[in-house]
Amino acid sequence: MNRHPDYLLNEVNEPEDIKGMSLDELKQLAREMRQLVLERDAAIGGHVGPNLGVMELTIAYHYVFNSPHDKVIWDVSHQSYPHKMLTGRKMAFLDPDHYEDISGFTSPEESNHDFFEIGHTSTSIALAVGMAQARDLLNPESTDNVVAVIGDGSLSGGLAFEGLNNAAKLKSNLIIVVNDNQMSIDENQGGLYNGLKELRDTKGQSENNIFKFMGLDYRYIENGNDLQTMINAFKDVKDIDHPIVLHVCTQKGLGYEPAMKEKMAYHWRTPFDLKSGEGKGKSKSESYSDAILTELDRQIDAGVPVVALNSAIPGVFDLKKFQAKHPDRYYDVGIAEQDCISTAVAMAVAGARPVVFQNSTFLQRAYDQLIHDMALNDAPIVMIVRGGTIATESATHQGSFDISMISDLPNIEYLAPTNVEELISMLRWAIKQTDQPVVIRQPEKPLLHGKATQDNYSNIKYDIAHHGSEVAIMAVGDFWELGEKVCAELKKKLNIDATLINPKSLTGIDPEVLHHLAENHDVVVTLEDGNLSGGFGETIDRYYGPKSMKVLNFGAPREFADNVPLEVLYEWYHLTPKQIVDDIEKVIHSL
Amino acid sequence: MNRHPDYLLNEVNEPEDIKGMSLDELKQLAREMRQLVLERDAAIGGHVGPNLGVMELTIAYHYVFNSPHDKVIWDVSHQSYPHKMLTGRKMAFLDPDHYEDISGFTSPEESNHDFFEIGHTSTSIALAVGMAQARDLLNPESTDNVVAVIGDGSLSGGLAFEGLNNAAKLKSNLIIVVNDNQMSIDENQGGLYNGLKELRDTKGQSENNIFKFMGLDYRYIENGNDLQTMINAFKDVKDIDHPIVLHVCTQKGLGYEPAMKEKMAYHWRTPFDLKSGEGKGKSKSESYSDAILTELDRQIDAGVPVVALNSAIPGVFDLKKFQAKHPDRYYDVGIAEQDCISTAVAMAVAGARPVVFQNSTFLQRAYDQLIHDMALNDAPIVMIVRGGTIATESATHQGSFDISMISDLPNIEYLAPTNVEELISMLRWAIKQTDQPVVIRQPEKPLLHGKATQDNYSNIKYDIAHHGSEVAIMAVGDFWELGEKVCAELKKKLNIDATLINPKSLTGIDPEVLHHLAENHDVVVTLEDGNLSGGFGETIDRYYGPKSMKVLNFGAPREFADNVPLEVLYEWYHLTPKQIVDDIEKVIHSL
Repeated sequence: MNRHPDYLLNEVNEPEDIKGMSLDELKQLAREMRQLVLERDAAIGGHVGPNLGVMELTIAYHYVFNSPHDKVIWDVSHQSYPHKMLTGRKMAFLDPDHYEDISGFTSPEESNHDFFEIGHTSTSIALAVGMAQARDLLNPESTDNVVAVIGDGSLSGGLAFEGLNNAAKLKSNLIIVVNDNQMSIDENQGGLYNGLKELRDTKGQSENNIFKFMGLDYRYIENGNDLQTMINAFKDVKDIDHPIVLHVCTQKGLGYEPAMKEKMAYHWRTPFDLKSGEGKGKSKSESYSDAILTELDRQIDAGVPVVALNSAIPGVFDLKKFQAKHPDRYYDVGIAEQDCISTAVAMAVAGARPVVFQNSTFLQRAYDQLIHDMALNDAPIVMIVRGGTIATESATHQGSFDISMISDLPNIEYLAPTNVEELISMLRWAIKQTDQPVVIRQPEKPLLHGKATQDNYSNIKYDIAHHGSEVAIMAVGDFWELGEKVCAELKKKLNIDATLINPKSLTGIDPEVLHHLAENHDVVVTLEDGNLSGGFGETIDRYYGPKSMKVLNFGAPREFADNVPLEVLYEWYHLTPKQIVDDIEKVIHSL
Repeated sequence: MNRHPDYLLNEVNEPEDIKGMSLDELKQLAREMRQLVLERDAAIGGHVGPNLGVMELTIAYHYVFNSPHDKVIWDVSHQSYPHKMLTGRKMAFLDPDHYEDISGFTSPEESNHDFFEIGHTSTSIALAVGMAQARDLLNPESTDNVVAVIGDGSLSGGLAFEGLNNAAKLKSNLIIVVNDNQMSIDENQGGLYNGLKELRDTKGQSENNIFKFMGLDYRYIENGNDLQTMINAFKDVKDIDHPIVLHVCTQKGLGYEPAMKEKMAYHWRTPFDLKSGEGKGKSKSESYSDAILTELDRQIDAGVPVVALNSAIPGVFDLKKFQAKHPDRYYDVGIAEQDCISTAVAMAVAGARPVVFQNSTFLQRAYDQLIHDMALNDAPIVMIVRGGTIATESATHQGSFDISMISDLPNIEYLAPTNVEELISMLRWAIKQTDQPVVIRQPEKPLLHGKATQDNYSNIKYDIAHHGSEVAIMAVGDFWELGEKVCAELKKKLNIDATLINPKSLTGIDPEVLHHLAENHDVVVTLEDGNLSGGFGETIDRYYGPKSMKVLNFGAPREFADNVPLEVLYEWYHLTPKQIVDDIEKVIHSL
């Protein structure tokens, strides 16, 4: 039910509905929309600070421009909630029953005011240049504006720079709004931000201006949270006949005190109490990240030259703790995954022991560095990867490509621990050895205790946790418990005493175990929490290809899943113990 | 035999051997070394212009600095020939019998003066920052210098910018030499080069300075081809206690008139006549690239809004021809593959028909854009990929990862034509359809004629070129002829009348054909000119995993191959028709 039937926003179905509003009405809209962002985020979680900060900018945009003829591309698009409210999706904010109707990012399926599915940073300028070039080619007489809105934090990503470089070649309309809130997810990192500060300090007057250096026109807007200012600014650049950068200063989290105080915590937030700002999540229990950080402390105490690197996501791994203890060993390169890997490669080659922390989905940006820098140089980097799982959130952040991305490359060992003791054992070995890059897939399911069954992983020895016959279940990493359940179900339904194996590695195989399985098994089943294409299961398929062993692979198909609950996805992908056993049964019957 | 026993260079075994030389002697070295670069390149091919341009810079570097305590990282490292001559590898230039002893890039295996295997652009600053950080951590008292040498062309790659951004955070020695020769492989592209020109025009005095903007110290050296100037410049910055950019102007190809005139042609050159500069290669015959460009002309004539995009490699696809005919439809984004894909995505979404030309090895830099921009948005891009083959050149440029990189992703159709008619048929369909991204693997083996057996590839129908029994050979793309040879050998050796299949696609399978093969075949053999891990064969393995069909995959193992002749590699990888048939025979005997 609409919680705010009295809101002026109720009258807005399309952007044109705000064009007749007075400044006071527009300001009222801004107040209402801030409240709605907060109510929805408090209830279901979401991006807080980025949306509060661009409220005036968004209202002014839709007041001045004619969407969707004029086209705005939101970088990352995590700040697109206000845009969604003004483009036909207000009920997803007014009515809690409809909160889940929309995604957290722009989506062409939701609205013709959205042009791309976007969730990663730094792409907006390149996309906007493409839109402008297509406009100029297909409809040379068109006066449609193309607008990219990119945060200062996203500017550190190399693609943003590549985009600026090519934007300067355009001889037609393009408006690049640099939304400068002096923050990335965490603090901004790097020299670029010296220059942006100088521009702010001089109200845009400094001669030294990276945008002008690249041949781009430039204007500075000091108060991007003032509606009239933003309306004037947009009116001034509308229909401009060349590329221009509009450097707009805004305040992240404006209008909600907790979000203004703790900008990193309120960048993205799980459900919270609106009054106090306190999180509603259960208190944190023992975590894999904690165990990793404790081990790094131990290594440093023992004199090992461990350093920790990440790319603007310290919160994902609780790295602020590490930074506090070891400030001279902590490196956050900003949103710049390519740089992070190359720099870590050099540190490893020079004798330090870099431990790199990456999210699977963002690591995609460093694929060439994984190959050309890390693997080719056999650099003994240790990397911890999170988010390598079958996705349940936005398809934009689907992390399930990691097995193919990493394990198909030469020289790399990609390990998948099944419990915290095994994780730490792998980490210790990875830091100790200097022969090759080692990547460890941090489990995402609730923490399990168990044991490590080897301490040197240079030759992978599969752990046969239970010796059975007929069917062998190979359960990798996070799917370990699933493997146990499948064994139980096999026993119960088919009275099969299945063998249960922890393969530990997504790359190396243990040919001895695989060979001996043939003696009293007919079917090998692989279970992996990731994509089947290029995944672990296919490695086993290839091994048994010329042999008589039957192999069945379980994992995710070659597709994107967008905000599908995990239990639903597991059903779709035949990943419940019952479905898996049904599938195994069919193979057994065909023998 | 040493062709120049009289050369002064013969006295140089280590860099310290030049430290006592007079300026005249150093100049003599430069003349000799230019001649040696030319003689070797003329004989076996290699990078010409980049090496001629940095002669003085390199001699001055080794005269002033103390390698390997001081460390230089050459970006791309295609300009490292002079460095190699001064660091113990002169015989690979003096003696034609030893020309092949060294690789074309820096290689730690060759010399302790080389720190990384490098062949891709834009990595040097990030690597140098890592070296400096490791130095500061491991040996805080060290006064070793770390020097990156990066060309202006490489600066357009996003990673170079990420590197600069993080270099500015260093509080210790780092020297970034920007070797500005006003060229990329081809012309420089983008706004960055406006700014660099302004810096050159003002002899480094312009207030607007991207390096200073980022907080980096900066000096300008007008004549980087003057030895004394470079010696002084390096002496001035040696042991500096903070990061500095040394903006050095040099002339690409200096000392060889043809290379100065035709800078793109002499960037990298196959063997040529030293006197005339004329190429020694056979005259070009019919090519796949020509056929593609002819088809694009046809499409444009028919009114299709085709545009062509590439990232600084027009020569690889003969795109200068396209540019000459269709200047308003041609986009070279410079070294910026991420930008290239994102921009093409936007153009496709906006209704143009972008055809993107990429090298497999460089496309690696755009992996995230393939996933997050192209595949997720189902953008109907057409992409032509070259170099997707088992590598025979430098491991740095190994292009055999493409099948895993592309075909394991959702929504993309990755096609592998076996002949020129099929290629054009696929291209036509790819341009006509607007449902999904289509990537076409351009064959690298000598052009074959044949026929297309379907014209709509939205459902792949395997072409059964010959109906046989017992064994089915699935020969993909460039391995088509290998497939024919294997069939002949099977007939000859085992009297097996094998089925021969052209699967056409590296992604989609034809389940009907695969199903019916089981009726009278025991073994399916896949042949792919690429990596097995995550490749085409594994897709077939997975399909047959639970079935009784035996499958044998042939392709490259998970490793790098560095400058191994193709016939040797094929032997190693069991890819000769005889080896393949031997392997098949073993499987047949085990049935």
